Amino acid sequence: MSPLPADTLDRAQQAIRTRESWSAFAERPDREPGADEALATARVTYESTLGSEFVLDQPTERMRVGDEMSPYTGRPLGIAYPVCDVDGLFAAARAAREVWREVPWQRRVQICVRIIDALHERLFEIAHANMHTTGQSLSMSCVGAGTNALDRGLEALGYAAAALERVPTQAAWRKQFGRTEVHLDKRWRAEPRGIGVVITCASFPTWNAYPALLADLATGNPVIVKPHPTSVLTMALAVRTCQEVLAAEGLPPTVVQLAADTAGDLVTTQLVEHPDCAIVDFTGSPAFGAWVESHAHPAIAFTETAGINAVVLHSVADLPSVASAIATSLCLFTAQMCTSVQNVYLPRDGVTTPDGLVSADDVETALVDAVRAVVDHPTRAAALMGAVQSRETPARVRAAAEQAGAVGRVLLAPSTYLHPEWPDAWTCTPAVVSVDPSARALYADECFGPVAFVVRCTDSDDALDQALADVAARGTIASHVYSTDDEWLEAGVQRFWRAGASVTCNLTGPMPLNFAAAYSDFHVTGLSPAGNACLTDEAYIAGRFRVVQERRPARDPGQP
Amino acid sequence: MSPLPADTLDRAQQAIRTRESWSAFAERPDREPGADEALATARVTYESTLGSEFVLDQPTERMRVGDEMSPYTGRPLGIAYPVCDVDGLFAAARAAREVWREVPWQRRVQICVRIIDALHERLFEIAHANMHTTGQSLSMSCVGAGTNALDRGLEALGYAAAALERVPTQAAWRKQFGRTEVHLDKRWRAEPRGIGVVITCASFPTWNAYPALLADLATGNPVIVKPHPTSVLTMALAVRTCQEVLAAEGLPPTVVQLAADTAGDLVTTQLVEHPDCAIVDFTGSPAFGAWVESHAHPAIAFTETAGINAVVLHSVADLPSVASAIATSLCLFTAQMCTSVQNVYLPRDGVTTPDGLVSADDVETALVDAVRAVVDHPTRAAALMGAVQSRETPARVRAAAEQAGAVGRVLLAPSTYLHPEWPDAWTCTPAVVSVDPSARALYADECFGPVAFVVRCTDSDDALDQALADVAARGTIASHVYSTDDEWLEAGVQRFWRAGASVTCNLTGPMPLNFAAAYSDFHVTGLSPAGNACLTDEAYIAGRFRVVQERRPARDPGQP
Repeated sequence: MSPLPADTLDRAQQAIRTRESWSAFAERPDREPGADEALATARVTYESTLGSEFVLDQPTERMRVGDEMSPYTGRPLGIAYPVCDVDGLFAAARAAREVWREVPWQRRVQICVRIIDALHERLFEIAHANMHTTGQSLSMSCVGAGTNALDRGLEALGYAAAALERVPTQAAWRKQFGRTEVHLDKRWRAEPRGIGVVITCASFPTWNAYPALLADLATGNPVIVKPHPTSVLTMALAVRTCQEVLAAEGLPPTVVQLAADTAGDLVTTQLVEHPDCAIVDFTGSPAFGAWVESHAHPAIAFTETAGINAVVLHSVADLPSVASAIATSLCLFTAQMCTSVQNVYLPRDGVTTPDGLVSADDVETALVDAVRAVVDHPTRAAALMGAVQSRETPARVRAAAEQAGAVGRVLLAPSTYLHPEWPDAWTCTPAVVSVDPSARALYADECFGPVAFVVRCTDSDDALDQALADVAARGTIASHVYSTDDEWLEAGVQRFWRAGASVTCNLTGPMPLNFAAAYSDFHVTGLSPAGNACLTDEAYIAGRFRVVQERRPARDPGQP
Repeated sequence: MSPLPADTLDRAQQAIRTRESWSAFAERPDREPGADEALATARVTYESTLGSEFVLDQPTERMRVGDEMSPYTGRPLGIAYPVCDVDGLFAAARAAREVWREVPWQRRVQICVRIIDALHERLFEIAHANMHTTGQSLSMSCVGAGTNALDRGLEALGYAAAALERVPTQAAWRKQFGRTEVHLDKRWRAEPRGIGVVITCASFPTWNAYPALLADLATGNPVIVKPHPTSVLTMALAVRTCQEVLAAEGLPPTVVQLAADTAGDLVTTQLVEHPDCAIVDFTGSPAFGAWVESHAHPAIAFTETAGINAVVLHSVADLPSVASAIATSLCLFTAQMCTSVQNVYLPRDGVTTPDGLVSADDVETALVDAVRAVVDHPTRAAALMGAVQSRETPARVRAAAEQAGAVGRVLLAPSTYLHPEWPDAWTCTPAVVSVDPSARALYADECFGPVAFVVRCTDSDDALDQALADVAARGTIASHVYSTDDEWLEAGVQRFWRAGASVTCNLTGPMPLNFAAAYSDFHVTGLSPAGNACLTDEAYIAGRFRVVQERRPARDPGQP
C-alpha cells in the first residue's frame, strides 16, 4: 500500500463539506495489482499469530486470556492477550495523558494520519484477523471493515481538526470601564476531556472504533480499547499499530491500550464507572447502550446500538429489483450489520406496480425467491453472507422463525449453506416469516441475525404508521420506503424525519441498502435508542475537548 | 431603545471569531440620554404589576401561585402566576413543536433576533422586576442582567446560526459499484431534538436563561422556562415577551411557556424526568446540578452550578489594588454571583511586593480595609452590593464565620448596611476569616454569599497546590492568580488548565474580577462539577439538533 498523499486530510475535509463521493483509498484494495500475493502473505502472517502470545507495549500484565474461535474453521485461535488491572490501565493512561495533551493538536492530527496510514499498510493482515473473528468475508474485511472504516476514521479526524481549528488561540482585548480603557491579553487552549474508553462489538469492530479512537486522539485524549472477548484480534492489531506509530514518534505507546477480558469476567462496567474515565464510545446492544448512557456520568457517552430497520412498500416500479435489494440486505454478512433490514411493512391487499396490484402473497414469493437466488448458490452465498460471528445466532434465528410461525407463516425456514472454501464455517441462511401487526411483540425489537418479518398491514398508510411506530419506539439506523407516488413518498420522508430518523427511498441496483458512505452519509441520527451518536457530526467531536482560557493585563497596553 | 441594526447577528459572529470586545447595546443603557425618565416610567409599569394576576398565553391553568418578596422592600410582590399541569405544558409544547420545527432555521434565527430586540425594548421594566426579585442593584439589573445577558444570548444565537449554516442541505452523489455508476440525490435537515426545559436560578436568572432559550429556539426546540419560585417575575416577563413576538409572527405563543411553582410543590424533577423533555438547561446548586446531569437521560443536560473561586497570592505589584480587586468581588452583588471569589490562598510568611515581604497579617488587614472602604459607606455599598435574594443568606454567612472563627480568626464579622434608598432592604456585608488548610472542610465547598476564607499555606507553591486541589475537587468558574514572577505565573496557568479550569492573572483596576465578556470569554469550561456547559462553545449548540437524511436515486442521473 502506498502512503497517503500529503493533502489527504484537506481532501477529506473538502468531501465533508461537499458531501461528494470520495475515498482516500482504492475502491477495491483486494483487486488491485499484486493484491493476491499480498493477501496470501498476509494470511501466512495471520496464521503465524495463531496460538501465540500477543505482544503489546502496556504495563501491569496480570495473566493472559483468549476466548476467540474462528467462525470459518470452528477452531480456537489460541491467541493469548495480556490482561491488565483496570486501575493499572488507567494509571498508565493518566501518565500518557500528561505527555499527549502537551503535543500540539496539529501534530496530534498528523500522528493520527500516520496511524491511518499504518493501519492501511496492514490492511490485509487485519482483514484476515477480522474475517476469522467476525465471520465477515475476506472482501468485506478488506473493504467494509477495512478501507471504508478507515475512511470513517479519517472523516472523524477531519471533523476534529476543523473543530480544533475553530478554537481561538489568542486575542488583544480592550474595553472601556468608566474612564479607563482596560487592555487584556487573552489566550485559549483546547483542553482534552480526559481518558477515553472505546468499547467495540463482536461483528464489526473497526467501523465505529476507528472514528472514536481517532476523534479521541486528535482532541488529546488517551484511549483504552475494550474489544468483545470473542472478537479481540482486529482491535489488538489496531492497538499495536497505534503503539508502534506512537513509539516511533517518541511518545508513550500507552496513549492507546487494550483491555482484554473474558466472557466470564467482563471489565466493561468497571471501565465505564472508573473515576478516570472521561469519554465512552460504545457499540453493542441497545440494552447495554442504554446502561452506558445512563451510568457513564460524569463521563460523556457516544453510543451506536441497533434499532428497527424498516422497509415500507407502497408501490414499486420493478418488484424483482426491490425484492433483490431487500434480499441482499438480509443476506449481506448474514444480516449481522446495524444497517441490515428486518421488518418489511406492506399492504395486505398487495403492492402497486406498473402492471397493476401484486398480491401480498406474490410479493412474499418474490422476496423468498430473491433470497433463494443467493442461498441456493454456495459461491454467491459465501461471497455475500460470510459466516456467523456467534454460534448462538442460528438457534436464535430458528427460535424467532418458529415463534412467528405459530402466529403467522414461515415463508422460508432458516438453514445453513456449505461454504465452498471453509466446510466447517458456521453459516445461517435467512428466515422469512409473514405476520400481521398483532404479532408486534415478535418483531418490535431487533432480532440479531437474518430474520425478515413481512408485516401485512391494513393498507399502505397503515404500513407507514406501523413502521413509524416501531421506529419511534426503538429507533432505526437504516430504513427504506418504496413508492412511485412522489407526494406519498415525500410525506413519508417528512414523517421519518419528524421521528428523528433518516430514510432511503426506492433504492435498487448494485449499491447495497446497507451501504453508508463516509464523508457523505450521516450514520445514525443520534435522536433515538439506536444510538446517541452520529458518524459524523459536530456533536461527535464537540464534547471531547473544552476550551480553557487565561486573561491578564496586556504587557503593552498600546494607545487607547 | 432603538431597534437592533440588520447586521447585528453578523457583527456578533465576527466578534465570536475575533474574540474582540463588542456589544450590540449601549455600554451603560441606564446613563443614556432619556434613561432617567424611561427608568421612572418603567418603575411605574413594574409597580402596576404588583398584586396582579400575571397573564400568559398558555393553556391548562390550574391555579395561581406567587411566593416572591422584594429584597428591597421586604414585602411580597403579590403577583399570581398561572400554574399548569406539567403534562399540559408538554402537550402544548408538543403541538407548538410541530409548527416551530417546520419554520426554516433562517427565519427562526430572525425571530430570535426580534426576541432580543423586544427584550431590549423592555430592558428597564425587566430591570425593575429583576431588582425586586434578585436583590441586584438597578444598574446591575440594567447592565449585567440586562444588556450583558442579552449579549450572551446573541452570542449563543450566533453560535447556533453558524452550526446550522454548516449542516449540508443537498448533494448529487455518484459512485461506482462494479460496472454501474450509482447516482443518488441526497437531502439533509437539522432536526430539532425536542422540547427544552430551562431551569433558572434565583439570583441571576437572565444570564444563563437567555442563551439557553435562544439556543433552543434557533435550533427548533420549544422551551418551558422553570424559574425559581422566589424569583419568577424576570423570566415571566421574558416569556411574555417571547410569546408576543411569536404571536405577532403568526406562530403559537406556546413555543415558549412558563412553569411556575412554589417552594412547597416544586415541579423541577417532574419536568426533567418527563418523557417529552429532550434538553435541560440548569442553573443552580452543584448538588441539584449533579442530579440533573445523571437523571436527565435520555434528555441531554447543560448545567452551570458553582465551584470554588480561588485567589492565589504569590507576589503582587501593588497590594492595595489587589486587595481592592478582591474586596470588590466579595462585595459585588453581595457575592451572590457564580464568579464571586471565596478562598484566598497565600503563604503564611507573607506575600512578596516591590517593597519586600508583606506579612500575612498585613495582607489580611489590607483586604479587610478594602472591604470596609465599601461597606462603611452606604452609598457605595448600595451601588455595589445591592440586597440579598434570600433572607437565609445572612444567617448562613454568620454561621460560616462563627465556625471558621472557632478554628481560625474572624477578621471581619458579617453585618448589615443601611440602604440609603430602601431602608427595609435585606443586606449582608462580607465576612473575612483567616484559617489554615486544616480547616479545609469549612471552605472546600461553595458558601453562597459574602464569605472570604483567607487560607494560610506553607508557602506560595503550597498555596497553589491547595487552591488546585480544591478547584480539582469542586471545579471553579472564576479563579485568579497574582504573581510578578512570569515563570511561576505561567507554570500556575498551565496547572489550572491541566485541572480543566480557566484563570485570570494579576487583574486589578476598574474591571471587576467577576466580569465575563460575551463573545470573548468562555464562561465555565464544562470540565468540572461547576458545570458541564460553557457560554458559549460549539458543544453548547451541537446536541440541540441532529442531522436527518434522505437518499434516493437521482431523477436525472446525468452522464457518468
